[in-house]
Amino acid sequence: MSQHPTAAAEAEKTAPPSASRYLDLIASKLAATEERLAQLTASDVPIIRDASEYIFSGGGKRVRPAMLLLCARLLGRNGEAEITYAAVVEMIHNATLIHDDIIDRATMRRGRATVSKVWDNSRTVLLGDWLYTRSMQMALSHDNLEVIRRLCDSIVRMTEGELMALDRLGSIDLGVHEYFEIIDRKTSRLFAAACSIPALIAPTDPKSDEALYDYGHNLGICFQLVDDLLDFTGSEADLGKPVHSDLRGGKLTLPLILALPRIDGRRRTAVEMILEDGAFARAQPEEILEIVETEGTLEEVREMASSYADRACAALEIFPPSETVDALEFAPESVLHRRS
Amino acid sequence: MSQHPTAAAEAEKTAPPSASRYLDLIASKLAATEERLAQLTASDVPIIRDASEYIFSGGGKRVRPAMLLLCARLLGRNGEAEITYAAVVEMIHNATLIHDDIIDRATMRRGRATVSKVWDNSRTVLLGDWLYTRSMQMALSHDNLEVIRRLCDSIVRMTEGELMALDRLGSIDLGVHEYFEIIDRKTSRLFAAACSIPALIAPTDPKSDEALYDYGHNLGICFQLVDDLLDFTGSEADLGKPVHSDLRGGKLTLPLILALPRIDGRRRTAVEMILEDGAFARAQPEEILEIVETEGTLEEVREMASSYADRACAALEIFPPSETVDALEFAPESVLHRRS
Repeated sequence: MSQHPTAAAEAEKTAPPSASRYLDLIASKLAATEERLAQLTASDVPIIRDASEYIFSGGGKRVRPAMLLLCARLLGRNGEAEITYAAVVEMIHNATLIHDDIIDRATMRRGRATVSKVWDNSRTVLLGDWLYTRSMQMALSHDNLEVIRRLCDSIVRMTEGELMALDRLGSIDLGVHEYFEIIDRKTSRLFAAACSIPALIAPTDPKSDEALYDYGHNLGICFQLVDDLLDFTGSEADLGKPVHSDLRGGKLTLPLILALPRIDGRRRTAVEMILEDGAFARAQPEEILEIVETEGTLEEVREMASSYADRACAALEIFPPSETVDALEFAPESVLHRRS
Repeated sequence: MSQHPTAAAEAEKTAPPSASRYLDLIASKLAATEERLAQLTASDVPIIRDASEYIFSGGGKRVRPAMLLLCARLLGRNGEAEITYAAVVEMIHNATLIHDDIIDRATMRRGRATVSKVWDNSRTVLLGDWLYTRSMQMALSHDNLEVIRRLCDSIVRMTEGELMALDRLGSIDLGVHEYFEIIDRKTSRLFAAACSIPALIAPTDPKSDEALYDYGHNLGICFQLVDDLLDFTGSEADLGKPVHSDLRGGKLTLPLILALPRIDGRRRTAVEMILEDGAFARAQPEEILEIVETEGTLEEVREMASSYADRACAALEIFPPSETVDALEFAPESVLHRRS
């Protein structure tokens, strides 16, 4: 039985906003980005063609392109450049992911075998190099030095963050400050670049640049905090990869960093054993989950993520109300409630 | 007893020109490049600082910076930009090398442990990414889009060449055409970029750009042919790494590619066994050396290298005679006679 039209309209008004409703604003641009991605990764070298197809047909969430395109819409950009840049940030993101998978010895991502599992580590090193440089080469096609600078700056920061994290792998004494230093570089700079790049397209707009950079930066931190939470609370089916992989990889994240100073020696030893073994050999995931639940640090981190979401929204205050501002305000909400 | 001054002067005139005499022309610029390298790789991340120092104090030959600086001198460039770009091409070259060492599982380079041996593969993947992107970030400091484009194009080609080579590793049926396709991308494009970048510095000079690109391109092919010869004929002491490492890595190069169609089944089987084993388990290096010597292909490849050296010099014909042209003409000679 069909609902009464007025009731349906009423229901829509009061229903929580859905991500898809906001993505509709940029649907055609997102579709164009997919086409651009396919164009940019076409190659006469068979392995590049095959691996790129595998990577970009693998159902990534396209969070960074979507953010870039929404910010472009906010500023009234409606050209080819933002489509190229959206494809470029997705290529950069995927270059990082495939190099990360080598480092983490990951065999599954997005529910499929990782690139390094399918093509081996050697080829994956070079495929990542190719993606990084090809993305930069393509970004150059719009002759905008400032955009290239923004992209390079964020990749330099990203690799620095990754190296800092790698250097502290397995350490139980990673502090809160250092954790934030790492995620600031590792994750939030590329978000900040993605969101602010539209302000660098002519006619440039320094005030919007600053606001959108700030927005993306806070959104990125929020995103990473939630990512780290999901490693504790997510399900393998939702994530498309094993849960507790951070801990198994010796990676200490905020929920445990906050809990460690508060727990007794026995429970601390359990954490140490997992970090040392890189496996749940002498202690079980349940023990760790019990720690972060009892100490309430999962909830604390969720609150921190929420406050970064608020800061992201606050950065949007300089823009007059619009459907696009609504969408940008909804993005941190959607990040907070994501399950994968 | 000291020589009579006139006799000494006479001896100098007839002595074969030495590389150092020509390098004197750019000595101060090369020194400035070393300083720039140290500046550009300074970092607040300890591992980046330490690894960079290790990499750039490791006695590389600085062939690409030297070529870039000589070409800059030829065009009368005397600023800061060419010093940055010289440092940048050396950073790019080293990024390639450290990623290559992961792929080749090499443990020695320039007589020392490879970066991947000292810092492990994971860190080396990220260090290479950092070097690539940091070099691009620094190249941007002179606001020259064309230079960035030239650099990106050459790195894209380079990674393509490496991937093509990797895909054909262990194959005995690699043909001459494919071999040249690979070395064209893998080696010669960065040489061509290094030599032609000075023509892209304002005031730009399209005719010089074309000539110097052509020069660098041919020099690069010559360089790679000699590199492949040295793997057969060099000594470990000169090379700073084990000899026959190409073959041991399953890499077929021109001397054997040319010899294979001419040899009998027994000797072909010896080559196949080495490529298959990635080791001299069932056949000895001496057997392979005997093949390329008997078939005269070492000599043939040397002649080919020499003809690329000639082509490089021919590209310089548009420039009026000068000491710098002499130096550029000497470079291919010096590449032909290098022992490491």
